[in-house]
Amino acid sequence: MIRTALLAFASSFAGYSACGKGGTWIWYPGDYALWRGNDLQARRIEHGGGYPVFWATYAPHPLVDFVKQVELDAPETVDIAWEGTCRIMGWGAKDPLPGVVSNRYVFPAGKYTVVARVYSQGRPPALYMSGPHLKTDSSWTADWRTVVSGTSGEPAPPAETRTRLDAPGRRPSEMRLSTAPRAAAKVETIRGNHIFADFGEETFGFLKLKGVKGKGRIRIVYGESEPEAMCEDFDGPDQWEYVEAGLEEELRLKVSRGFRYAHVIPDSGVSVDSVAMDAELCPLRRRGSFRCSDELLNRIWDVSAHTMELTTRELFIEGVKRDRWTWSGDARQSYLMSYYLFGGSDIAKDTLFYQRGGDPLVMHINQIMDYTFYWFMSVWEYYMHTGDRLFLEQIVARMASLMDFAIGRLDANGRPRDRPGDWMFIDWAPQPLRNHGGVTSFEQMLFVESLTAMADVLDELGRDGAAAYRKRAEVLRSEIVPLFWNREKGGLMHLLRDDGKLDGQLTRYPNMFGLEWGYFDAEQRQSVLKNVILNEHVMGIQTPYMRFYELDALCGLGMHTNVLDAVRSYWGGMLAEGATSFWELYNPKEKGLEKYAMYKRPFGKSLCHAWGAGPVYLLGRHILGVTPTKPGFAEYEVRPNAAGLSWIEGTVPTPHGEIRVSCRDGVLSVKGDGHGTGILVLPGNIRRRIPNKGSLTIRDM
Amino acid sequence: MIRTALLAFASSFAGYSACGKGGTWIWYPGDYALWRGNDLQARRIEHGGGYPVFWATYAPHPLVDFVKQVELDAPETVDIAWEGTCRIMGWGAKDPLPGVVSNRYVFPAGKYTVVARVYSQGRPPALYMSGPHLKTDSSWTADWRTVVSGTSGEPAPPAETRTRLDAPGRRPSEMRLSTAPRAAAKVETIRGNHIFADFGEETFGFLKLKGVKGKGRIRIVYGESEPEAMCEDFDGPDQWEYVEAGLEEELRLKVSRGFRYAHVIPDSGVSVDSVAMDAELCPLRRRGSFRCSDELLNRIWDVSAHTMELTTRELFIEGVKRDRWTWSGDARQSYLMSYYLFGGSDIAKDTLFYQRGGDPLVMHINQIMDYTFYWFMSVWEYYMHTGDRLFLEQIVARMASLMDFAIGRLDANGRPRDRPGDWMFIDWAPQPLRNHGGVTSFEQMLFVESLTAMADVLDELGRDGAAAYRKRAEVLRSEIVPLFWNREKGGLMHLLRDDGKLDGQLTRYPNMFGLEWGYFDAEQRQSVLKNVILNEHVMGIQTPYMRFYELDALCGLGMHTNVLDAVRSYWGGMLAEGATSFWELYNPKEKGLEKYAMYKRPFGKSLCHAWGAGPVYLLGRHILGVTPTKPGFAEYEVRPNAAGLSWIEGTVPTPHGEIRVSCRDGVLSVKGDGHGTGILVLPGNIRRRIPNKGSLTIRDM
Repeated sequence: MIRTALLAFASSFAGYSACGKGGTWIWYPGDYALWRGNDLQARRIEHGGGYPVFWATYAPHPLVDFVKQVELDAPETVDIAWEGTCRIMGWGAKDPLPGVVSNRYVFPAGKYTVVARVYSQGRPPALYMSGPHLKTDSSWTADWRTVVSGTSGEPAPPAETRTRLDAPGRRPSEMRLSTAPRAAAKVETIRGNHIFADFGEETFGFLKLKGVKGKGRIRIVYGESEPEAMCEDFDGPDQWEYVEAGLEEELRLKVSRGFRYAHVIPDSGVSVDSVAMDAELCPLRRRGSFRCSDELLNRIWDVSAHTMELTTRELFIEGVKRDRWTWSGDARQSYLMSYYLFGGSDIAKDTLFYQRGGDPLVMHINQIMDYTFYWFMSVWEYYMHTGDRLFLEQIVARMASLMDFAIGRLDANGRPRDRPGDWMFIDWAPQPLRNHGGVTSFEQMLFVESLTAMADVLDELGRDGAAAYRKRAEVLRSEIVPLFWNREKGGLMHLLRDDGKLDGQLTRYPNMFGLEWGYFDAEQRQSVLKNVILNEHVMGIQTPYMRFYELDALCGLGMHTNVLDAVRSYWGGMLAEGATSFWELYNPKEKGLEKYAMYKRPFGKSLCHAWGAGPVYLLGRHILGVTPTKPGFAEYEVRPNAAGLSWIEGTVPTPHGEIRVSCRDGVLSVKGDGHGTGILVLPGNIRRRIPNKGSLTIRDM
Repeated sequence: MIRTALLAFASSFAGYSACGKGGTWIWYPGDYALWRGNDLQARRIEHGGGYPVFWATYAPHPLVDFVKQVELDAPETVDIAWEGTCRIMGWGAKDPLPGVVSNRYVFPAGKYTVVARVYSQGRPPALYMSGPHLKTDSSWTADWRTVVSGTSGEPAPPAETRTRLDAPGRRPSEMRLSTAPRAAAKVETIRGNHIFADFGEETFGFLKLKGVKGKGRIRIVYGESEPEAMCEDFDGPDQWEYVEAGLEEELRLKVSRGFRYAHVIPDSGVSVDSVAMDAELCPLRRRGSFRCSDELLNRIWDVSAHTMELTTRELFIEGVKRDRWTWSGDARQSYLMSYYLFGGSDIAKDTLFYQRGGDPLVMHINQIMDYTFYWFMSVWEYYMHTGDRLFLEQIVARMASLMDFAIGRLDANGRPRDRPGDWMFIDWAPQPLRNHGGVTSFEQMLFVESLTAMADVLDELGRDGAAAYRKRAEVLRSEIVPLFWNREKGGLMHLLRDDGKLDGQLTRYPNMFGLEWGYFDAEQRQSVLKNVILNEHVMGIQTPYMRFYELDALCGLGMHTNVLDAVRSYWGGMLAEGATSFWELYNPKEKGLEKYAMYKRPFGKSLCHAWGAGPVYLLGRHILGVTPTKPGFAEYEVRPNAAGLSWIEGTVPTPHGEIRVSCRDGVLSVKGDGHGTGILVLPGNIRRRIPNKGSLTIRDM
């Protein structure tokens, strides 16, 4: 298992703020996330062919103005580097500044505005300056609307940067994930001249063929399961590709792939001695941990963490074999899990930037209405977990324009409904969800949360406009239960049809979220629990995706023991099937090869899917019980709940350190992160302040 | 003089329509113009430093869906090539199509929609297919809003293509201008180890240093004039750069530059034997010609044509030394000139695409309000000269959105006025133009023309919406003379101030355009002629840019003889100063080094400026007298006017051939283009049909 990673690019949490001593590279916020994200998504192959995404795709801006007010007592020599072409101007300076002639530039003394205009096509524009006083960092602004334009009222956002990109040679365009050589657990020769390798567990990286002889093609079939890699049909395994054997004795595949098994099929006249790989490492370091008296839960946590590490690449992707894409709904869960495993990270921020994309907007994020709404919630949750106010300043205009887009698609009653071309995903359900020809309770609730996130961000930044969003949220929220509640069935119905009648479908989704977000009075809550959540006749949830929300909601009701039982059964079931990472979907009734099939394809199911890693979140959030109550853990609560386990212990990362919780032999001990105001909440709502130094220990629990 | 050019990329007029036998590469309309245009603009250097443009710059779209309905009787094997990553789907096909596995692809029989989704970052997405029936051409659509979205009512535009890009290896991203070796007219060693070369006339290309020895830097100073190249100040000459002497004996500069003189200054320890260049050739072929009994006018036509050829690169640029940029107002004149020299061309189309850029719009084209308006006019004029209806279909949505932008910036009376950040250029005038704090008559007139062009395009395509634009144009047009006419001064005033009073400035600009566009009654026309145009006390025009419009307007009044005199004097004046290409600005009073200075810089003036080439247009349009009266020369008029010359002869290109006019020894002969309906218009408005075969000859003229 790959536990640690070389940080080839910046990922340390301190990266949010401006640089320390020297300058750092800066760029227009989100441009590198888009650029790297676009290429990341394009690495998907399917049945031997490239497979680009199907949503509108945006390029980074080719020309950006970087601007900073300076006041220099004396002329200052500054090291400069840039991507592409750069011109430096001194607006309001006494004399025009010299054209850039080298990587050393002398800024004259005086008080003026430095405008560095950088053009670059192919790689996003970026700038680096480092001098005694003048240096690039996030105190610069960056804008593709050049400074002469003055045409938009929206102020230019702060430039984006990474702490570690602190030298001219550490260009953002050259950031790469680190790799480490890795041997296969077992390599055999099969079917004459084929090589079949098992890397022992799901992994990710560049396959290497050793001892390649002869001239011709070699077909590589990757498998997450042994039968997938064994299958030589062209339409069978999801990932296969050809490489040309030629001069080199060792061939390294050009694109890193997710797999456990590799099957090497040389043309006749070509032979391969063995295979290995360069594992491409997760750029983030584990900071969260969990251990308890139940080894099954420990193993579930480990495999969840491994699943998260494999799906954490340049961005959070949803699966390592398929799609290798970044989906906003899936990503919301990756973010939440990542806060309990890695803490807040540049990967979360970059994924949020990529998801939002550029302008003009022509469709929902990933084309999915719910995925637009999850994005708003994810921005706020990122802020709660990181306190990264700079990001809010960088993203707020794009939030507002996405909200304009969403509002422009509401129906005449101000309710979200699908327009032609929109997809309402909600979940991969075992029976079709009736989503069309009306409005769904589920989407209404997500939109209320989106409006609230939008308003919260505006308030946090001290900007105008929050009230209108809040008003809209309140009106819509107040309508949902009256519109969708069915007294007979005792829960919220799924669809309100255009004829004003409720469709007969009762689903768990709106009821779970209704519990989570406090839509119900006490009587309704009991009814929902009994008639929906615990009612086996209501269609069950098979994806870990929606199980995440279901179990989260149950914890909210204090049903931690039931939740742990469900985790043991559902995730434990996958382990019993031999899983080394968690799956896109699990149905214990599927046997043999059935369990690999999905989307009408024999190996269509992803066996390493980010949304499978929910226990990392559930155990940290609800068993260790740690959650921020003010942005960036300025205040936080710890509500441990051992849920029948004889001992638990673990850590939850915050921007300032780790919070450590242990409960063993009747002794509960909590160590804070040394920074925020931590409150331990004990049964009966007893609240105790966690000290900034040392631990708070409670005996006789 | 470089007369002919190898056509390294497609420029023949036939290129507008779909391909012939095989397929051609296709892409989203305008993406390659943007991509090449962005890099073209970035080649400017000034005082040794890079100098990017200052307007909002747009990238091509990284992901495009190419779509075509097919009906194949039998499976068809097709050659395929693409940039980046491609996936092919058959929407409505019986079975899913196979993933792309090679450059040969078998499409199944049946009736379905082929969707080829291409992703490429760095180079725009492009696609090539060539099969017996299925092939890529402009009958495909291209859209960055993927076909699943269905979110916009605007239909996908036809794909863009070039006839010559008709093989998998002829990729649009690899189009380059052709080059040809060229020796200097004179090379000398000066100041010890410097080499000084004179190429005999203004030229364009890659300088080559021969016999480079030693290791160190070599400074290259380019000059359009000898004093510029001789000047070694860092802030003196506009274009200079360093190259590193190293291993190679021959060094070819990486970027092509416009210059006549090159001054090579090696570091001590470095020596250079000689210099030459690879001239980068104009991609278009001369098809227009003009000769007459006045050798001065012939020379003026030749130097104008040379100026046009030098400023015709991947796009029309405004000057070869500075800015090397594409300015929409300058470009309008380049288009008009080009129609009389090259005929309609892909360069004109690409320049129009580049100028429009992408979305969202945040400023006027080139940041200049007038330049937005010239663009609308240029689209219509391009169509008149080419009949390229496909281009209208490709650009119409972008016209409409730019018009929305312009309308969004009108004042409360529906009149264009500058907003913060806008630039009203109008002209480089010897005295400041009072443009701010009110509305200018000049901009109102340009906007009327823009609205008319917008309406004409919609009507031509049979689309809705023209009436509203036409109504707006009529209302505004009817207001202009009443608002701006000053009875005392006998002409249109420049500025109507916000306090409702006319500013005291009387300028030629609105009066010229008012004459051109028929704003005046007979009495007003006489007044404008006497009190403005022929009034030496009204500020004169010094740029060839506005002289173009002034002389055009005078020809409209039948003052051809005065116009030829003005051409002899003004352009002849530049020739007398030694010009080998025409200048950005000419003032006969400037002597010695003064004539090279501009923008407070000693060599700031561009000596090869597209707008200097006006005579190519004036002589073809008004002396040969050829003009289209229906789109694409479906109908055209020939109104020759020898204007006192004892003989004239020449050709004007049309999409179908050349129209030839000669008038010599009292015999007027006109040969049509063999296609359109040509009318010869003789003095007294006598109209004669030009035959489609043979010539129409009129004796005793």
